[in-house]
Amino acid sequence: MLVNKQAIEDLAIGASILGTGGGGDPYIGRLMATQTIERRGPIELVSPSEIPDDELVIPSAAMGTPTVLIEKIPSGLEAIKAFELLQRYLNKRAYATCPAEAGGINSTIPFVVAGAMNIPVVDADGMGRAFPELQMVTFTIHGIKATPMAMADEKGNSLLLDTIDNMWAEKIARVATIKMGGTAWIALYSCIGIQFKNSAIWGTVSKAIHIGETLRDAKVRGANLLDALLDCTSGYLIFRGKITNVERANIGGFARGEARIEGLDEYKGQFMTIRFQNENLVAERNGKIIACVPDLICIIDSETIKPITTERLRYGYRVIVIAIPCSEKWRTDDGLKLVGPKYFGYDIEYRPIEKLVGEG
Amino acid sequence: MLVNKQAIEDLAIGASILGTGGGGDPYIGRLMATQTIERRGPIELVSPSEIPDDELVIPSAAMGTPTVLIEKIPSGLEAIKAFELLQRYLNKRAYATCPAEAGGINSTIPFVVAGAMNIPVVDADGMGRAFPELQMVTFTIHGIKATPMAMADEKGNSLLLDTIDNMWAEKIARVATIKMGGTAWIALYSCIGIQFKNSAIWGTVSKAIHIGETLRDAKVRGANLLDALLDCTSGYLIFRGKITNVERANIGGFARGEARIEGLDEYKGQFMTIRFQNENLVAERNGKIIACVPDLICIIDSETIKPITTERLRYGYRVIVIAIPCSEKWRTDDGLKLVGPKYFGYDIEYRPIEKLVGEG
Repeated sequence: MLVNKQAIEDLAIGASILGTGGGGDPYIGRLMATQTIERRGPIELVSPSEIPDDELVIPSAAMGTPTVLIEKIPSGLEAIKAFELLQRYLNKRAYATCPAEAGGINSTIPFVVAGAMNIPVVDADGMGRAFPELQMVTFTIHGIKATPMAMADEKGNSLLLDTIDNMWAEKIARVATIKMGGTAWIALYSCIGIQFKNSAIWGTVSKAIHIGETLRDAKVRGANLLDALLDCTSGYLIFRGKITNVERANIGGFARGEARIEGLDEYKGQFMTIRFQNENLVAERNGKIIACVPDLICIIDSETIKPITTERLRYGYRVIVIAIPCSEKWRTDDGLKLVGPKYFGYDIEYRPIEKLVGEG
Repeated sequence: MLVNKQAIEDLAIGASILGTGGGGDPYIGRLMATQTIERRGPIELVSPSEIPDDELVIPSAAMGTPTVLIEKIPSGLEAIKAFELLQRYLNKRAYATCPAEAGGINSTIPFVVAGAMNIPVVDADGMGRAFPELQMVTFTIHGIKATPMAMADEKGNSLLLDTIDNMWAEKIARVATIKMGGTAWIALYSCIGIQFKNSAIWGTVSKAIHIGETLRDAKVRGANLLDALLDCTSGYLIFRGKITNVERANIGGFARGEARIEGLDEYKGQFMTIRFQNENLVAERNGKIIACVPDLICIIDSETIKPITTERLRYGYRVIVIAIPCSEKWRTDDGLKLVGPKYFGYDIEYRPIEKLVGEG
């Protein structure tokens, strides 16, 4: 399909849902991608199946604290610089780019790069949502290396990283990102078509566009937006209430914290605690786990049915909390080792949202 | 000249004096260089004047906290890896290598690289001593960029850095070094012969060898070692006493602190405070500045006349403190902006040791 300005707007909406509270503000990414399309026309979105087995795919992304990004609107040139740096290092041109994560600002960054490089975006990513650390992609499960990885900042600094594993790429790139001012632009997880097809989560870009389209369409029709959202995401409503407290701190380059919500309507008298680290990670309802990572937890504004990112959570907001099943790739042993609740420091056995809701 | 095992031993002694308390333990570097010479024979030391104007020189070095290096004896392969990485990136072979700093372990590292690459070492460096940060070289004064810069650690991680200025190279490389475990091996400040000749401090490697030789010879002759040392370094005796207190902390990848010395013999009843940040930076005698950076301040064991690095300073050591004039390149406005006492946070106007001693 060809992705035009309308599709980018839909994508930004859908990606803010898949961002599960993190992944950066997609509206900034939307601006960047829209400018690209205005200059260069619509951008092609291709299925992973269309990538020749031996052609190169290079995902492109932003890295860092979303909170910083809001204060420092990027030009997009840095993402292109990192991409070109990696291409030059590999001495091979990429056939396509794609999001490393389909949630948040990183859903739209690849369109900026694709426009500049005149290549398509692949309809797939490495997360099917947003995650806070760069080794947290299905590429890692399949043995694809994050490095060689290129990074660039808006000041003009850049670096090329080669590490022994993806955890080391995260560690070194993270401290460099913090030193660069909180945000860096990256190109990483380069691989050839056959590797990409096996390791990526398919269809996540068009899924995000579909979510945005569905909500837009429901609005036009005057239909119930929440019902439409739950329907097109296969999501579950898990709470409704008012935010009564938010605690957060910027620790080691991440926005960590928790939000407390007092129940309203059918949840009156009940309470929910959401713990987050860039993304929402654990939802406890009345002290009991009702959803946890890698399933998606989204806090939605009750009136607009738009998601609220963790950095925008504030006392007094009336919200709905929904949970969406993650990709099956994350529900394997290898997947849960990488992104399960234990990795994030919670002593919780992962159980799929479908089961938890059934018992709740 | 050809540098054999004896010359490396002399160099290590001389470099420990020029290290002014920092630059890493030169005995570790001596071991590494000696092994190289045992395998490959003596290594050529050439004058800067012998470098063709258009040929490439790449200085090689270690970066990080010397304290960590003592606990983590390196193989030397990491320095070679960083050097080769930069050569590959520049797509040009180096005609020669040289020390980035002539003090401490970094005086001998280039011999390990030179042996492996079968190239000579240039008799010059960028400091004429040791300094704690990588922009603190005469190359910076002359507009030579630290980057492209290669880094490697002993685990197998590496990176290539390209920054807008040498301060940014320091900032990003420093956090990467800390994350890599405290020490990294680097190749940087690559330049061609004509640039190198203008910007380097000449003759510093042979000067260090000469200091070591002189002390060895004085020992054989039964001559006064301190007199020999002051003579061959043009140094000044500024204190003699017993260390009564040492405070240090590892802050931001540097060993910072201060040592207090109570006077003995002709200095009985007097006291000295030495402030250091990897290297000794300021010497106060009875509360008055008697020597300061960029002049060299060395704390010497009274009995052996061997220097004591800042990480080995301990209560009870009987020591002599000497000060040595720095290169004239550092006494310029540009030089003092880069490495004068103000840069290190001391509200002191730099005055040459020759003047301060004359008034003392």
